[in-house]
Amino acid sequence: MLYEVEASLTYDFAAPCEVLLQVEAADGPDQRVVSQALTFWPMMQSAQAEDPTTRQRRTIFQAFGRVNILYRAQVDILAREPDLSTLSAQAIRDLPGDVLPFLRASRYSPSDRMESFADREFGGLTGGRRVTAIVDWILKHVDYRAGVSHSATTAVDTFIDRAGVCRDFSHLLIALCRAADIPARAVSVYAWGLQPPDLHAVAEVYLQGAWRLVDATALAPIEGFVRVATGRDAADIAFMTIFGSATLVEQRFKIDQVA
Amino acid sequence: MLYEVEASLTYDFAAPCEVLLQVEAADGPDQRVVSQALTFWPMMQSAQAEDPTTRQRRTIFQAFGRVNILYRAQVDILAREPDLSTLSAQAIRDLPGDVLPFLRASRYSPSDRMESFADREFGGLTGGRRVTAIVDWILKHVDYRAGVSHSATTAVDTFIDRAGVCRDFSHLLIALCRAADIPARAVSVYAWGLQPPDLHAVAEVYLQGAWRLVDATALAPIEGFVRVATGRDAADIAFMTIFGSATLVEQRFKIDQVA
Amino acid sequence: MLYEVEASLTYDFAAPCEVLLQVEAADGPDQRVVSQALTFWPMMQSAQAEDPTTRQRRTIFQAFGRVNILYRAQVDILAREPDLSTLSAQAIRDLPGDVLPFLRASRYSPSDRMESFADREFGGLTGGRRVTAIVDWILKHVDYRAGVSHSATTAVDTFIDRAGVCRDFSHLLIALCRAADIPARAVSVYAWGLQPPDLHAVAEVYLQGAWRLVDATALAPIEGFVRVATGRDAADIAFMTIFGSATLVEQRFKIDQVA
Amino acid sequence: MLYEVEASLTYDFAAPCEVLLQVEAADGPDQRVVSQALTFWPMMQSAQAEDPTTRQRRTIFQAFGRVNILYRAQVDILAREPDLSTLSAQAIRDLPGDVLPFLRASRYSPSDRMESFADREFGGLTGGRRVTAIVDWILKHVDYRAGVSHSATTAVDTFIDRAGVCRDFSHLLIALCRAADIPARAVSVYAWGLQPPDLHAVAEVYLQGAWRLVDATALAPIEGFVRVATGRDAADIAFMTIFGSATLVEQRFKIDQVA
Repeated sequence: MLYEVEASLTYDFAAPCEVLLQVEAADGPDQRVVSQALTFWPMMQSAQAEDPTTRQRRTIFQAFGRVNILYRAQVDILAREPDLSTLSAQAIRDLPGDVLPFLRASRYSPSDRMESFADREFGGLTGGRRVTAIVDWILKHVDYRAGVSHSATTAVDTFIDRAGVCRDFSHLLIALCRAADIPARAVSVYAWGLQPPDLHAVAEVYLQGAWRLVDATALAPIEGFVRVATGRDAADIAFMTIFGSATLVEQRFKIDQVA
Repeated sequence: MLYEVEASLTYDFAAPCEVLLQVEAADGPDQRVVSQALTFWPMMQSAQAEDPTTRQRRTIFQAFGRVNILYRAQVDILAREPDLSTLSAQAIRDLPGDVLPFLRASRYSPSDRMESFADREFGGLTGGRRVTAIVDWILKHVDYRAGVSHSATTAVDTFIDRAGVCRDFSHLLIALCRAADIPARAVSVYAWGLQPPDLHAVAEVYLQGAWRLVDATALAPIEGFVRVATGRDAADIAFMTIFGSATLVEQRFKIDQVA
Repeated sequence: MLYEVEASLTYDFAAPCEVLLQVEAADGPDQRVVSQALTFWPMMQSAQAEDPTTRQRRTIFQAFGRVNILYRAQVDILAREPDLSTLSAQAIRDLPGDVLPFLRASRYSPSDRMESFADREFGGLTGGRRVTAIVDWILKHVDYRAGVSHSATTAVDTFIDRAGVCRDFSHLLIALCRAADIPARAVSVYAWGLQPPDLHAVAEVYLQGAWRLVDATALAPIEGFVRVATGRDAADIAFMTIFGSATLVEQRFKIDQVA
Repeated sequence: MLYEVEASLTYDFAAPCEVLLQVEAADGPDQRVVSQALTFWPMMQSAQAEDPTTRQRRTIFQAFGRVNILYRAQVDILAREPDLSTLSAQAIRDLPGDVLPFLRASRYSPSDRMESFADREFGGLTGGRRVTAIVDWILKHVDYRAGVSHSATTAVDTFIDRAGVCRDFSHLLIALCRAADIPARAVSVYAWGLQPPDLHAVAEVYLQGAWRLVDATALAPIEGFVRVATGRDAADIAFMTIFGSATLVEQRFKIDQVA
């Protein structure tokens, strides 16, 4: 299925500064970027940074004043496995080396603190069945509600508060998977069908030889997710990191199916 | 200067399990592994994992009962810059892509929470002068004392407690550097002169085009550090991660200068 | 000096519920309530509760719909000691029994965690000199800024964030005093000269035989504080605790000097 | 039923200091102190402090060197209601004023953070049925295990860790009761049948006009609890608070039924 995505970000910069940008769709085994264009207005210097965990575009804003960043792409989403419950986990020995970091505790997914709960609640389950049980548990025990969490909120906070937004849902899912030695990472996506349209924070788990998208909010179908950035948690996948100061004028994300 | 290091780890395993091991010296621009040997007794299967942030040996213990891991190496430590104060920081645009993750908050170094303090205390300083001011501040304000911190202790806790061990010192140093956009990572080292001998947790900061060792505990000279693992914080550089259970029988680390 | 205070609170109650109210001026050695009136519109049942730490009015709202609470008082503020630096602390043996609870850690002032810092920073000082040194330290190291703290913010958070509002300033001051065995409690006051007019959160310390008002924000003179409620921290001195739900329509606090 | 309790505390004091002591049995509607004796060796000055929440003995150790405190009492425990499930909660308007503080969040029982969970899990239940459901939930979901918690551990930590000791069980129980507007406080008791013998931390809830003992650990029968101190949480009921330094030589608690 072919999708067209668009991000338009307009900011006012009071002084020259640098920005890391992560709005571009990622190529991968289950999605292919057919065409894309990233344009800065006025024109800016930018370079793709080779970050091993995320792929980031490094952009230097040297113009004072208003800057618009426009990203457009056509992306083909290939077959995805919507039902993870039949997939098996892999032994540590069979995990690729670059998957290992996603077994470990991170800033917003301190999985080391959730092992006792995870063992008690999901101890009898493994692999995909465990992941789907975790998703079901989150859906049942956590409310999707804005205003509860803030920028420092971790999976442990969300576990206590029992409420949060997509970012919090993904952090809790990731922490609970890692607590069971299932590699899990944070992913930002354009999500077809999400209302209101926005970049969506979801997760990926490594099952049966591949990273598999999973969304504990159930707000949109994973078949319509265009993957952008991946990382250990929200610290890694921010769509924009400004090293300096800027004022938001407008930001808009869009995704449509192409007939 | 040539050093000889040795790690001897003896554990009892009640059941087959897998282990990630990080005791091997790392090659790098400022140290060269001249010779090394890693032996398991009884013999085990092991494979080097290609983790982009750390380099880990993955070992599968299939034998029941007692296992000894013996690592020995001769490592040549080349010239190191003991005085960081004259080194300059680099603009984000000049940082290699694989350095970028070390700007971000992690499990034990939640740098996002320390920006206000860092700005107030070290705001006028940049680059190496800022790093050395941070080291001086830690030495003056934090006591080296066991029993205060535990496995979940973060840099924020140590900032409050004003006491901790090498792991805590490194986490606080890393958090305060990242809060100023100076890339910083955790490093485990064999430390010549450290009493009692042990693996030591220190940090590296990225200044003037290279990673530079720095130790906020001042317990041993950086010229005698044999670097082992690197990562975002202690979550990444554990010398042994056991996926299952084992009982420690004995562990011993050693480092000597070779005449 | 005579002051006139007024609080007007208007809320919509969707269902009958109970409310604890703390807006009434307190009699005490350094202030005398000359006259006061508390009226509910429409008329409500209310009773003074004898809480040993705070004095609370318990009110039962049985009317559906809009309720206005109007409190007016004339209060005479007697001589106050604006300079605490010459006052001495008392030995534990000389503290009245009802002062002892204010030596202990509470929800928002976890003084047990701040002892190391307090000893290092203010260790050489005692009594009033220590209190004024703490106030000076807070004024110098913490910014008065809204939006940083929220309802769960503790003194430890404010110590990290280095920013907050009056509630946060009082919590940090209280925690640092208790860490030095100086009894300290939270106080709500009508503050003459505060802009914009509002109930203000400050602290009291027990020095030389009496509770002494102290304000780490320096936003208004303590000679113009009309004391309302006292307690261990903000958990005890909320001006309104609603056991049920209500919608704020308008609330307004006023204080004027009477010529 | 008549019980005989004994506490013997031996400490070495390097310098004169003051101590707050809470080892004495409390008179109350459900227990009566028949006879008691508190002796210091060598002889010390001591005075009962009138703390409104706890009743503390204030003792001044002026002797250098070794001090032994010996407390012995015979206490008659009257009828107690072991089954709370049939008792009703009271409206806020019917609570005595001195019960109100025990509705509020405290250092180790931050009930404000547990309201969402409490509503979700126990929302349909009120009064004694809710309390017994909370006790059952804790027994089922939390392991009694030493070494997990430490002096700064709160009910929120225990909720995450799913393990702790009696102090942690009581803090979690208290927090979950307060989150439902059921007054709850911490209590230290001599507990007949507890192995090994020790002061035990339990809780009291205010139901149907009286404080009722409740123990989420189920380690000993409440009919054999001799109540000592009460307070908001462990911060208030420490059996010994030393304002200075001392070295523990030996401490021993005992309780026997008198035939």
